[in-house]
Amino acid sequence: MLRHIASNFPRSPQELNALLESDAELVSLGRGMTLAITADTIVEEIETGLYADPFQIGWIAVMANLSDLAAVGARPLGLVLIEHLPTDLSAAFLEALQRGIAEACLAAETYVLGGDTNTSSSLQIGAAAVGLIEGGKIIMRRGLHPGDKLFASSYFGEGNAYAFSRFFERDSTPAPLYQPRARLREGVLVRQYGSACIDTSDGFFPALANLIELNDKGFSFRSSPEELISEATSALAREAGIPAWFFLAGPHGEFELLFTIPRDQEAAFLRAAGAIGWEPLQLATVIEAPELYFPGSENSGKVDPFLIANLFSESGGQPASYFVKLRQTEFYENQDQSSKTE
Amino acid sequence: MLRHIASNFPRSPQELNALLESDAELVSLGRGMTLAITADTIVEEIETGLYADPFQIGWIAVMANLSDLAAVGARPLGLVLIEHLPTDLSAAFLEALQRGIAEACLAAETYVLGGDTNTSSSLQIGAAAVGLIEGGKIIMRRGLHPGDKLFASSYFGEGNAYAFSRFFERDSTPAPLYQPRARLREGVLVRQYGSACIDTSDGFFPALANLIELNDKGFSFRSSPEELISEATSALAREAGIPAWFFLAGPHGEFELLFTIPRDQEAAFLRAAGAIGWEPLQLATVIEAPELYFPGSENSGKVDPFLIANLFSESGGQPASYFVKLRQTEFYENQDQSSKTE
Repeated sequence: MLRHIASNFPRSPQELNALLESDAELVSLGRGMTLAITADTIVEEIETGLYADPFQIGWIAVMANLSDLAAVGARPLGLVLIEHLPTDLSAAFLEALQRGIAEACLAAETYVLGGDTNTSSSLQIGAAAVGLIEGGKIIMRRGLHPGDKLFASSYFGEGNAYAFSRFFERDSTPAPLYQPRARLREGVLVRQYGSACIDTSDGFFPALANLIELNDKGFSFRSSPEELISEATSALAREAGIPAWFFLAGPHGEFELLFTIPRDQEAAFLRAAGAIGWEPLQLATVIEAPELYFPGSENSGKVDPFLIANLFSESGGQPASYFVKLRQTEFYENQDQSSKTE
Repeated sequence: MLRHIASNFPRSPQELNALLESDAELVSLGRGMTLAITADTIVEEIETGLYADPFQIGWIAVMANLSDLAAVGARPLGLVLIEHLPTDLSAAFLEALQRGIAEACLAAETYVLGGDTNTSSSLQIGAAAVGLIEGGKIIMRRGLHPGDKLFASSYFGEGNAYAFSRFFERDSTPAPLYQPRARLREGVLVRQYGSACIDTSDGFFPALANLIELNDKGFSFRSSPEELISEATSALAREAGIPAWFFLAGPHGEFELLFTIPRDQEAAFLRAAGAIGWEPLQLATVIEAPELYFPGSENSGKVDPFLIANLFSESGGQPASYFVKLRQTEFYENQDQSSKTE
């Protein structure tokens, strides 16, 4: 739908990225300066009950926008808020909502610049964020080459772990407050040294599928999916008795960055990362074929990221039926059904 | 409410305007460049039925944002759209909506840069617009001085005339499609020569009240309110048998600019305006007292713009009861009730 809507609009000659080619839109300002702008609103997540805590709603509305700036390595200039508030919200709810917004801005060292507040029948909190890129070098989702290394800013899974707790364990365990941070400092280094970058806000496999489709290249991973998952998420998977890779599949990702570094930039990148106390995870090597491989004997470890990325929309966005579909999914592809041994 | 919400947020040291001091937020980028950013969403106007035509909704969503850029004299870089679309919208509706957006951008020589689309239970179309100001000189709502002249980009009333037709004459006459244009070219000149500027999107009297409050100065008009009203609006007022000044009072303004020019800039400004084929209307002179005078014998023609600007919210935002309140309002103040002769 987004593609259909956007295809009607001519693009600005100053815009550097094509449609969906970048987490934030990149507009050349001249004089070596590029403006990054993005907009994101929390609508479905409130309607489905994924977020109900007002502090968290405010926090996520800010961080979702800042994460798009992080993925293009922009320094945030600030946000304009777009708040649709039902008239019957309590003062305490409103106060916590604004506190979530203010604390997220403080954590990211950025500011609310202004905004637009409307009364509305349903609560929706959004923003547009602007950032500045100086020095000319930009990064988008497109731009990686075979031989580049795929890195992650950190381990994955906490976004989907939160959604799982919220939807399936609501009565037994209260879900921990999910309060992710945009990887802004890391994004600046990624832009300086990297060849492509995307955030994982729509999930790890959806992000991989996006990179594969846009670049028409693939990835050969050095470790199994389980090794990419955060400790807390692994513990949750064990307790709940479900495969850990489920938490890489779901569409409620986290605000980590998934990015590629050309071989000749790797040493300098890792030194710069070390200098800010950051240890990026090395995940995979970019390969010519637009395919995805994990270490594994079955079918050379080939996995279809599109199949996994599409499961959620195929289940009509319903957590329960999505979960059933995940359980029915074979992680590794079995292209040759006759050779299947199970 | 906006003040209450925004008062929780610390302001960016790069932001040049204080809260509500400017139609768009102004952020210094260094190197003599200033970024203008604004956000505006069409929510209440759809909920109340003021706008129902999808082309018009798209057009207005774009122009409302661009008008804020016009009022700070910024050159638009583009917009990010924020669309909340019910799943049951017809393809024809969606197509007309996008056409309204695209044609408004074309008319203003600007672009959709990107955006965020969500499914939602109710239709809401918004955007954030960014623009660039080069050369250092900026303009805000605050900054006028006694002796400055107040000008308007053109005649007023068409926004409220549209609202009147839509709410009160729906059955007899179909309301003409209201399709205002942001005064972008004019705004650039106003920024270069002017001392303060605001758009009249919230109505003429509300805009005046805003300038008076922010600047703690007043205006002495050279002509009666009736002379400020567009021909089409005057004709509608005559036909409907209502005072023409009602169309300056309502909160559904148009996207004209109301601005002040210092005396020593007036000649140069009028030459520059003439060079682009524009004839600004000279309305009033800025006076020291934060008061509003029109030519008139009663009470020296003193009018309370705050009383007029607040009538709509006092009527609970209901067009019918607002109209009753308007009819009960004496246009000129009668501070000394005993001297009232009627």
